[in-house]
Amino acid sequence: MPDTVPMNVIARLRCDFTEKFGVPRQAGLAEHVYSRVVFEPEYRNADALRGIDGFSHLWLIWGFDRVRQKTWSPTVRPPRLGGNERMGVFATRSPFRPNPVGLSCVRLVRVERDDPDGPCLLVSGADMTDGTPIFDIKPYLPYADCRPDASGGYTDLLPEKRLAVDFPDVLAEKLPGEKRAALLDILSHDPRPSYQSDPNREYGLSYGGYDVRFRVSGGTLRVFEVLAI
Amino acid sequence: MPDTVPMNVIARLRCDFTEKFGVPRQAGLAEHVYSRVVFEPEYRNADALRGIDGFSHLWLIWGFDRVRQKTWSPTVRPPRLGGNERMGVFATRSPFRPNPVGLSCVRLVRVERDDPDGPCLLVSGADMTDGTPIFDIKPYLPYADCRPDASGGYTDLLPEKRLAVDFPDVLAEKLPGEKRAALLDILSHDPRPSYQSDPNREYGLSYGGYDVRFRVSGGTLRVFEVLAI
Repeated sequence: MPDTVPMNVIARLRCDFTEKFGVPRQAGLAEHVYSRVVFEPEYRNADALRGIDGFSHLWLIWGFDRVRQKTWSPTVRPPRLGGNERMGVFATRSPFRPNPVGLSCVRLVRVERDDPDGPCLLVSGADMTDGTPIFDIKPYLPYADCRPDASGGYTDLLPEKRLAVDFPDVLAEKLPGEKRAALLDILSHDPRPSYQSDPNREYGLSYGGYDVRFRVSGGTLRVFEVLAI
Repeated sequence: MPDTVPMNVIARLRCDFTEKFGVPRQAGLAEHVYSRVVFEPEYRNADALRGIDGFSHLWLIWGFDRVRQKTWSPTVRPPRLGGNERMGVFATRSPFRPNPVGLSCVRLVRVERDDPDGPCLLVSGADMTDGTPIFDIKPYLPYADCRPDASGGYTDLLPEKRLAVDFPDVLAEKLPGEKRAALLDILSHDPRPSYQSDPNREYGLSYGGYDVRFRVSGGTLRVFEVLAI
């Protein structure tokens, strides 16, 4: 095998995140976030999905297409460590790696065989933006992939802190029900960069055609505006 | 991102399997099989491994370089189903997929920082042959990757059957201790193609410079010869 191998984009993720801001930091954290895996025309083939319905979870191997950086650095600053400690890139899931490839375990909700875009996969819990190129889809094999005895290095010491979300009904009602559930999930995971803590700072999260504006203080995120974009 | 993305080989696996015959069918099945991840010269950098020691398990994303087939088929015959039932390629971990990329969870035994080949990773449980190209190494994150509630489709119905291994001491003693443990592990997982069951058929497995010859009958694998190659 030569030193460089071409990888074909076989599918793209379709979801409500048009920007990186708000995208969950790992797969599975926001289970109410639904996405669709839409195959590229030459890979639209229902036979290739035969038997996949029996699996509850899938692996997606995908490209960090929002990474503009062309070189790699041996160390990165993981957000979970507050952004001020350096770790080796291979000890992190950072996008700034020699090959900008992501790995995500998503839940398979259902196969949509009669979609106008060809047979699609409806999945939940993806941590990717709309249009993300996908290189491979594999079943999650519990007997090989689930390792309950695994230790997670520095990630074990830092349980993800969740925010309380104050989302007034009058604003939440502007959103369709399924986007409301997704947004509560996303907002509770604190989308702010880890080094920001100004309670007066206003943030805008773009999701599914809405701009959701909020502030955060004392462990509570307060939505103060929802605008249709 | 264009429709084809180049992937660089960053490392190669070094292990005792020079041929595919005998390689475990998934990662983690043969925990006594040790391998080394040796970085390519331009990726030899101890900083890139900082903090990796805290993780017990790693993901390897790698290339099926022994696959000669240049086209892909929507369906394949998984060995676990006896080789006579077809499944969609995305419902299997078969190497015959649109992008010939493998995904393996291995145990990190230790980082070898003072190796003549540069900083290396000693891992166990890999399901790859010697020289396999590696595209990425990621930490296994229990909070995102371990899904104890996952269901494994047709693989749940088919517990891996293990063989009893009769490895006479006089033959086992020809092998160094660590290769003996690895071979007991490998042989117990039944390396034969699933459609073969002739008790008189002789098999030869090449491992770590030895040719291990055996027959299988009635749930027992009997080693009858060990030759240094």
